[in-house]
Order: sequence, then C-alpha cells, then structure tokens
Amino acid sequence: MPPVLDALEVVTIGDELLLGFTIDTNAAHLARELGADGVRIVRRATCGDDAAAIAEAVRDAVERTGAVITTGGLGPTSDDNTKAAIAALFGRAMYFDETVWQGIVHLWKSRGWPGEVPESNKLQAWIPEGATILHNRHGSAPGIWLEDDQGRWVAMLPGVPREMRGMLADTIRPRLAEKRGARAATVIRSRTIRTTGIGESALHDKLGDARRGLFGLPLAFLPGWEGTDLRLTARGLPASEADATLDRAEAELRARAGDVVYGTGDDDLAAVVLDLLRARGWRAAVAESCTGGMLGMRLTAIAGSSDVMLGGVIAYHNQVKVRDLGVSEADLAAHGAVSEAVVRQMAAGVRARTGAEVGLAVTGIAGPGGGTPDKPVGTVWLAVETPDGARTSLAKLIGDRDEVRRRATQGVLNLLRKALTP
Amino acid sequence: MPPVLDALEVVTIGDELLLGFTIDTNAAHLARELGADGVRIVRRATCGDDAAAIAEAVRDAVERTGAVITTGGLGPTSDDNTKAAIAALFGRAMYFDETVWQGIVHLWKSRGWPGEVPESNKLQAWIPEGATILHNRHGSAPGIWLEDDQGRWVAMLPGVPREMRGMLADTIRPRLAEKRGARAATVIRSRTIRTTGIGESALHDKLGDARRGLFGLPLAFLPGWEGTDLRLTARGLPASEADATLDRAEAELRARAGDVVYGTGDDDLAAVVLDLLRARGWRAAVAESCTGGMLGMRLTAIAGSSDVMLGGVIAYHNQVKVRDLGVSEADLAAHGAVSEAVVRQMAAGVRARTGAEVGLAVTGIAGPGGGTPDKPVGTVWLAVETPDGARTSLAKLIGDRDEVRRRATQGVLNLLRKALTP
Repeated sequence: MPPVLDALEVVTIGDELLLGFTIDTNAAHLARELGADGVRIVRRATCGDDAAAIAEAVRDAVERTGAVITTGGLGPTSDDNTKAAIAALFGRAMYFDETVWQGIVHLWKSRGWPGEVPESNKLQAWIPEGATILHNRHGSAPGIWLEDDQGRWVAMLPGVPREMRGMLADTIRPRLAEKRGARAATVIRSRTIRTTGIGESALHDKLGDARRGLFGLPLAFLPGWEGTDLRLTARGLPASEADATLDRAEAELRARAGDVVYGTGDDDLAAVVLDLLRARGWRAAVAESCTGGMLGMRLTAIAGSSDVMLGGVIAYHNQVKVRDLGVSEADLAAHGAVSEAVVRQMAAGVRARTGAEVGLAVTGIAGPGGGTPDKPVGTVWLAVETPDGARTSLAKLIGDRDEVRRRATQGVLNLLRKALTP
Repeated sequence: MPPVLDALEVVTIGDELLLGFTIDTNAAHLARELGADGVRIVRRATCGDDAAAIAEAVRDAVERTGAVITTGGLGPTSDDNTKAAIAALFGRAMYFDETVWQGIVHLWKSRGWPGEVPESNKLQAWIPEGATILHNRHGSAPGIWLEDDQGRWVAMLPGVPREMRGMLADTIRPRLAEKRGARAATVIRSRTIRTTGIGESALHDKLGDARRGLFGLPLAFLPGWEGTDLRLTARGLPASEADATLDRAEAELRARAGDVVYGTGDDDLAAVVLDLLRARGWRAAVAESCTGGMLGMRLTAIAGSSDVMLGGVIAYHNQVKVRDLGVSEADLAAHGAVSEAVVRQMAAGVRARTGAEVGLAVTGIAGPGGGTPDKPVGTVWLAVETPDGARTSLAKLIGDRDEVRRRATQGVLNLLRKALTP
C-alpha cells in the first residue's frame, strides 16, 4: 500500500539523543515546517546508533506509515550506520559514488582545511543502489532518498541542525509538495491565544463548552509560567478556509476569556506592556527585590525598549530599599520586606528617583528558604504606580525559586497591562 | 517474558510535542538521570494526545521491552487521555479515588486559590484498578505505576518538567533501584568539566592528545554561551572503577586546561563567584546597561545569595548612569556609553553608592540595532572593582541579542572570578 501523502513518521538517530546529552530540536523543527505545508508527523521515534536499532525503528515506521524522515548517522565515523542499515532493509547493495566523493574533496579544499581529506570521510560517498542523492550545500554528508516499488520512502537527513534545516527547505519540502500535487491544497495551521493571571481550570470553566474546541477545531491548553496558552489547530482545510475558521474561533475565545488574553502566537507580555506605555508616551523604571533584575532583563530583552525603559534599582538587601528607594525603616520593621506597604513605597520610590512616569515593584519570598506560616514560599507582593494612581496585588505562586521569580515578573507586567487597558 | 532490568523505553505524549510547539526536554532528562543509575533508554517514541495513538505506542514498547515510562497527558483537561488509554491496554477499569481527590482539594486550599476546585480536576482522581499511585508533591496530578502479572510495567509521569523531574527522583529511581537489586553492578557515568573565556579550538590545542579522550574514556566538546563544557563518559564499569577513572581523567584535563576551568557538572559561574566573595567576607553590587538586570538576576538566582549580593542599579538610560552612578557626562559625550571610561565609572559608582566591597559593571551593544563600524553589535565593556583595584575587559561577542547579553553576563562574572583567584 503506498503511503498517504499528508502523514509521515520521523526517526531521529543517535546515542547522544538517547543518552540525553543532546536535546532533540530537529524533531520540533520538522514538525513545524511540515505542519505549515499540511503534512502531519503522526509519530516520532528515537533510537541509538547501532544498525539493528535503526533498522527496527525504520522498519516499523515504513510498515505503519510508509513515509519516513530520519535525521542523524550520516557522518564520517564508525557509528554512522544509517545508510547501510536502511539500504539493507530495502534490500539494496551499496556502491561508492565517485561524484559524491569529488564533491567532498572539493569542499575540503575550498574551505581551506589542512592536509588531505581523511580516509574515514569516504564512508559518506557510499550510497544505496537506486537511491536519489539529495545535495547538501550546508555540509559534506549528502542526504539520501530511498523508495520501494510500492512508493514507500525514507528520506535520510544529517543530524546537525543547521544542515538538516537547510536540506529540509532545499530538497524535502519541494519533493513532498510535488508528490502531493493537488492534495497540497490543504494545510495544517494553528493559532495560539495567550492568557495570564488565571489558573488552567478556572480558564476551563470560563470557556464553557468551547474548552473542547470550536467550529471543528480542537483546542489545547498549554500551561506554563507565562500563563496558559490556548492553541487552536485547523487540519485538512484549504489555506483561506483554515485562516477564516481560526479567525472566528479566536474571536469567540477572546469574547469568552475576556481580559486575561494578552496576545497571540509568540507575543511577549513585556513587549505588549512596552507598546501600551509607548502609546501614552510614558517611561518605566523597576524596583526589584526577589526577582533581582529579572523584570529589568525582560523589559530590556525587547529590542528598541530604550525609548520607554529607563532602568531601575535592584533592591535585594533591605538597606538598598531604604537608601535608594526611600522605603520606611519603620514599615520594614512593622510589616516585613514582603508587604503591601513596602512594595507600594518601592514603586513610588523608583518612580520618584528616576523621573519615570511608571514604577513597577516586586518583593517576595522565592524560596527555597525564607518561608513562614504567614508568608510561605511563593508569597509575592506586586505594585505599579502611574500618573493615574497605584495598584498592588498579592500573588501566591507555585514552583521552585526560578519559577516563582518568573511568575512574579509576569504578574507585575500583567498588573501594569491591566492598569493601562481601559 | 518479564522485562530485563536495565533497559526501558520512553513514550512522551502530547500534540504539542508532535506538532513541534514544545521541545521535548523531559526525554533528555530521563536519559541522563537513569543512565547515571545504569539504566539505558533503548528507544523513545512520541505520540499525540488521542487515546488510540497512546495505546499503540505504549503497546509496542510494552511488547518489545516490557518497561516503559510515559510523560504527559495526566492533567485535568479533556485531552489528557494517558491513564484511560493505558488502563484499557492492561484490561483495567478505572475508579474514582477519594484519597487522591481529597489531596487535590487540600492542595487547592493550602495554596489559597480562590473558590472551589473546578469539576474538571476530578479527572485527575480517576485511577486504573490495581495501579500503584505515585505521590506527586510538586503538583496536583499523581503519577501511576501499572504492572501486569508478567512483571511488565508502565510508569506514567506528568509532562510538566518540574513535576516530572521531582517524581523521577522521589519515586521512579528508588523503585527501579529496588527492582534491580544486585543487577545494578555496572553503570554509565559521565562528568562534565566546565570552561569559559576560551574558544573551542584554542581549548582543543591546549588539551593536546587528550582532546580525543583519556584512559579509555571518550571526551565530548559542548560549546555554548556559558563557555565550552568537556564531557567524559565511563560505560560498563562497576561504579567505583568508573568514579576512579573519571577522577584521574578530570585531574589530567584540569592540569592541561588551567585557569579556564571554573567548575564541574552543573556548577554555575555565579555560584562559584558568590563562594569566592563569601570566603573574603565581601559583598557585591551590580551596574548594568545592556544586560538590563540579567547579571543581578543570575547572582540572585542562587539561593542564599543575600549575604553577598546587595543589589544594584539598572542604568539602561544614560541619565541613570549619570544621576545614580556618577558617570561623567563629559566622558559619555567623548567616548560613548560603550567605553572603558564609562564602564569603569559604573563599577566604581555602584560600589560607592551601595557600600559593597565589589562592583561589577557591563555596558555594550546587544543588537540587533545600534552597531557602528567602530563598535559593532557584540562590543561589550566589562569592569570589576574590588578593594584590590579595578579590572576592565573588552569583549567581542557573537550571537543574537539574548546570546550577547548572556555571554556578557558570563564574561563579567569570569572577570571577577579571575580577580578573586590567586
């Protein structure tokens, strides 16, 4: 049975992947790029470098789906077994391809590498009989396309991400588009709507029956420290219809979720807040205790933030809160550094000291130590002060030290977003 | 056939993994942690959220290897199908576990979250008959251990990395160690030696023939923004012999690499520098321009840093450099904000203003805009001032905005490390 043309499997090959020394970024890249063309990865496997493991993993995928992309195991070393293992699986002998070899020699010399090409590189010029050689202009190992008489195929790409990505664009996507022909009229498109300041299950309840999907599009909930992202996916529709359905579904989700939505796609809350400030001609400064600079870092991570972001004070130690931000020693003694009184004075203090129209402040207990029954780890006070007044918020955050700090940073940005949104 | 005890398969579950929206870091973490115990992951598969796909992927792995860890699909939403799919595979019904539910209710209240626990969370309290419930003290979804009468088992863990990691340490590793008993005779162990402030090829040259490995242990070079890590791996040796060989190899590598080595394993340069400061009884403060808070964030990311780290000034805008750090307006005009004169005054200024013994300062062009022929993107001036004097350094860094800022942060920490190391 020939493969269907919009589903394939991926096999990523390499001991370093299986041992966890390398994070597999190729698999995600393949999924995103192919998904945009309407090709779905239905399953992914990772196996080690030995020929038997490769043959087994690829055989299963060929039998199930008949359309397989592999990455890795095409290099010049003795643990690069991909071609030989898959050639054997397809019952093909290997031959030495003089043209490929001359290409490798040429690359070596043109790069100015010293001496002769090592003997071991000859391995890269051994090709399965009847294979299509996929030119690799990003490195020395060519890719291989092997297809049987039933139309089942395996495309072998290098494991080096830069080379794999280049070859995917140069050779694989055009080949698949050609194979699919008219079938390529449908796409897989998705859209992410970003929410923050609401728990996953409360969001569930707010969305009602839309939480299972809308207009035939499934909906996924993706919680993280930035908030919960909602992802709609359209499959098997023509591009224009996919976009129109996503537009309708997004509008409906926004209407139900309300002001917890701050953006779509990769929108960063820091960039959203900078835009809101810019629209008013206001500048910002930060006063950070437990986040220790993370809030400033996030705002300045956005290129072009310098027209809005002045800077601020990292007031980690209480003496800095008093000296540089004018926090009252009496309030520190009476209420503690993690208190509404102190966070309010921090926001006001950094605003006054820098001349910024807007001050943001964070003080809390990031853990793992420092918690008390009254103020457990994760207790964080947030404040913003603008020309329109001050707002404070008490957050009870979950996670380890890093996560509490990330959530606190997101929380104070969200407090400002709400203050700036009518 | 019961499973062998030192090989297992991993199935990571989730549409977001298959669609490439999330990079699978759990798989690598599992491989490393289990590898250290001598347990090998022989194959890994990724499938989507639907019950049929989960059942098929897990069935294949159970039939092949009989020992399977899954991650993902245990949350409270309708696309969390892992438990039901695997229960069906093992021919088990599901029951509602009141104790698990009370735990979820208790967690909800103890965190001070508003209102009642949403109905949807009840999904997390449905458990396959005869399963062992793996307590999750890092989140609300418990893990599940399901085993058949042939000793074949599946352990289901949450997909949230923090929860998965916690449960691996708390429950899975101890269970596997117990199951393996005396079989745990040989191990896979690796050791990472961390270097910074030297290019990969210069490091190559410095190591001489050791760059290919030492005492039969292969050596891998792992370059990144923190520097270049060197990883030695011992395989198939008894634990004590593996450790002794790694010790010898590490000593030899350290002797050859010299003062570019700052630690091993997961050692963070910020923690190394805090320890050096603590040993002298010195406190630190930071003055940051292009890094915008990242240096402060890194130092305060280390729990217990408050005895050393006072805080500092985010001097993103030049007016903050002048007002808060006492940088000379004349020098700013004559040399620009990215200059040795300015970075030196920033370090001195924050030291004077906070009373810290040590000031660290960074000013540079992180890009993508702002570069000039004289000072291209990646040009960064670094300074430290201690009671022993000041040091400055000009760095020319590669990468995008984020990477330039990370490398700059690492660079100034390394400048201080060298100033504090005799």
